[in-house]
Amino acid sequence: MRILHTADWHLGKIVNGVHMTDDQAFILDEILQIIDSYQPDIMIIAGDLYDRSIPPKEAVELLSKVITNITVEKRLPLFAISGNHDSPDRLGFGTALFRSQELYMATKIEEALSPIALNEVDGKVEVYLIPYLEPSEVRQYFDDENIKTHQTAMEKIVETIHETKDKNARQIVVAHTFLAGGMETDSEDRLTMIGGTPYVNASIFEEFHYIALGHLHQPQKITQDYIRYSGSILKYSFSEANHQKSVAIVDIDKAGKCEIEKVPLKPIRDMRKIEGYFHDFLDGTTLKPTEDYLHIGLLDDGQLINPIGKLREYYPNILRLERVVKNKDQQTQDINMIRKKQKMSHLQLFQAFYEEMKGDTIPPKRNTYIEKVIDKLHQEERRK
Amino acid sequence: MRILHTADWHLGKIVNGVHMTDDQAFILDEILQIIDSYQPDIMIIAGDLYDRSIPPKEAVELLSKVITNITVEKRLPLFAISGNHDSPDRLGFGTALFRSQELYMATKIEEALSPIALNEVDGKVEVYLIPYLEPSEVRQYFDDENIKTHQTAMEKIVETIHETKDKNARQIVVAHTFLAGGMETDSEDRLTMIGGTPYVNASIFEEFHYIALGHLHQPQKITQDYIRYSGSILKYSFSEANHQKSVAIVDIDKAGKCEIEKVPLKPIRDMRKIEGYFHDFLDGTTLKPTEDYLHIGLLDDGQLINPIGKLREYYPNILRLERVVKNKDQQTQDINMIRKKQKMSHLQLFQAFYEEMKGDTIPPKRNTYIEKVIDKLHQEERRK
Repeated sequence: MRILHTADWHLGKIVNGVHMTDDQAFILDEILQIIDSYQPDIMIIAGDLYDRSIPPKEAVELLSKVITNITVEKRLPLFAISGNHDSPDRLGFGTALFRSQELYMATKIEEALSPIALNEVDGKVEVYLIPYLEPSEVRQYFDDENIKTHQTAMEKIVETIHETKDKNARQIVVAHTFLAGGMETDSEDRLTMIGGTPYVNASIFEEFHYIALGHLHQPQKITQDYIRYSGSILKYSFSEANHQKSVAIVDIDKAGKCEIEKVPLKPIRDMRKIEGYFHDFLDGTTLKPTEDYLHIGLLDDGQLINPIGKLREYYPNILRLERVVKNKDQQTQDINMIRKKQKMSHLQLFQAFYEEMKGDTIPPKRNTYIEKVIDKLHQEERRK
Repeated sequence: MRILHTADWHLGKIVNGVHMTDDQAFILDEILQIIDSYQPDIMIIAGDLYDRSIPPKEAVELLSKVITNITVEKRLPLFAISGNHDSPDRLGFGTALFRSQELYMATKIEEALSPIALNEVDGKVEVYLIPYLEPSEVRQYFDDENIKTHQTAMEKIVETIHETKDKNARQIVVAHTFLAGGMETDSEDRLTMIGGTPYVNASIFEEFHYIALGHLHQPQKITQDYIRYSGSILKYSFSEANHQKSVAIVDIDKAGKCEIEKVPLKPIRDMRKIEGYFHDFLDGTTLKPTEDYLHIGLLDDGQLINPIGKLREYYPNILRLERVVKNKDQQTQDINMIRKKQKMSHLQLFQAFYEEMKGDTIPPKRNTYIEKVIDKLHQEERRK
């Protein structure tokens, strides 16, 4: 049985003020061609189909067109879940109606626990679709006060699946979550940190046959070859400049063993960082004229007149232009401090703020209170 | 063949600050019961499913639940179009996928011209779904400069249908439009007035067998019994206080003749206007305590202390409270002027403003220009 695994489409994404819709339409067209070449038996999209709860109408139109092509024209069964960027209610519209066309879209916890059974020529396969869920939703559903973190929430779900699964079948699990050890970029949004960590241990998934993951934008396996992030379809920040984006083609044999091929995606416009001197850019020594999305670092020391205007004649899609000043200790320190803060959770940021204001660490009671407030705000934001 | 015809659900509607979702869920449940009692062969929703382009998530959830119940559980074929309040792109999501479940949702002009054919025991029926369209969209589609008004746009569509229809079949046409002679209320939004009028003549529909209309909120036939507005499912403004809301049950015989029954809808809370003296309200003489939505007019002359607070103890859902002052000439004149202005089109309002500012009527060239600007704004608003 052959699977095409992709994730993190982020339709409607705006990067540095630029709408990525054309780039997304181009790359999705490439995925349609990969379907034709590789002829998978099913396709998986592991969450974050949209970039936000209320996507722009162009994104809605594009998703509608692509999934219609896949399911109605190509007749390829499609399995998808909502990610932390999607609105479960909006993405969940009419999903019961989609099932007859073999489009299985899961956005609620109930749907995570009842698998879709596939009767393949080499035996039965069960697909479990676990959408992104807040720990509090899982706690409420199971009425279990011990569920406080993403780890305990996922443990409970996995445990329930193991109790009810068909032991003679192979299991494919689709999830949108942050596995410990995974490599992050600047474009995954922070997950809730209630309990102190957004991570889930990969080990809890080891007894399934393939785990199709979404959330992290870099294609990567975590601990096992069959526990895998397909990565996003495009580079969505300059921290992803060195990625090679791809989809995963997974062949599962009768015993449940997987062979995996990463099929590279070639964007219409690449996203990259490049440094050099102003005049070497202008005469094309450093870089030939290109429509790629660029983060240009200028090494020049002296004054430059209208550098962005002049560079745009050759490189129309410069998204960032910086003067690179080497060996300035204070600057480096400042940047390091900002980088450190960018990696802090909302709770950690508040703790640091409290310390700076009050000259003392936050007492446990207040800490618990602010933890709850952050959780509440986070959920409200997501539930829009 | 039996049809259940409804329209103008306006899910997500807020009336005087009150979300109508509970009232809408209640009345839709009543429609589900009417389906069970009357056992129609098909159901029609003639536009304005939502109240706005980006409906609140509660409205999305409610519509998803209801149409899933109708099509998946009751297996009743459902035909729907977008109205002037709906976003064609958002409502159009995944519609090609819905077709296998016999949910036919039309939001684009192309869809208006290709009918859905039904092979009933007593012969073939063609259903034409004409969503609400701006005259400019129709002009562009047919590349015909003569299409400038709603009338000429609809004429062109109807003409095209007559050319291509199966002359041995019966035709049902579903449309969201303002037929001349129809009775308006305060809650239908203004349609574009390019060319001076939002109206379409009912006569152009006379050669079809049943015309299921949406837009006007009062149940009514226009010129013929078979050219009919089902009306909205609820009263959405006090100008509708005297309506009896209903759905139409239509039996079409082999020859295409229609018999129509209006099945009344009973809301959980009625909406009504009532006048009386303060103390007659408080002691229940004028009106028994009720949760109905009320517009209360107080006839008292003297000072009253906190009337709204005291009245709310008996009538929690007062939406408007007014002092009714009889025989005040200036007041009456002012109100009449406001009412008159409320009925003016955007263009007429601008013309009046121009006259007031410049002391002269607007010259034709400027008039044409402002007409275009209004049209453009209107379309941008709708395309969100």
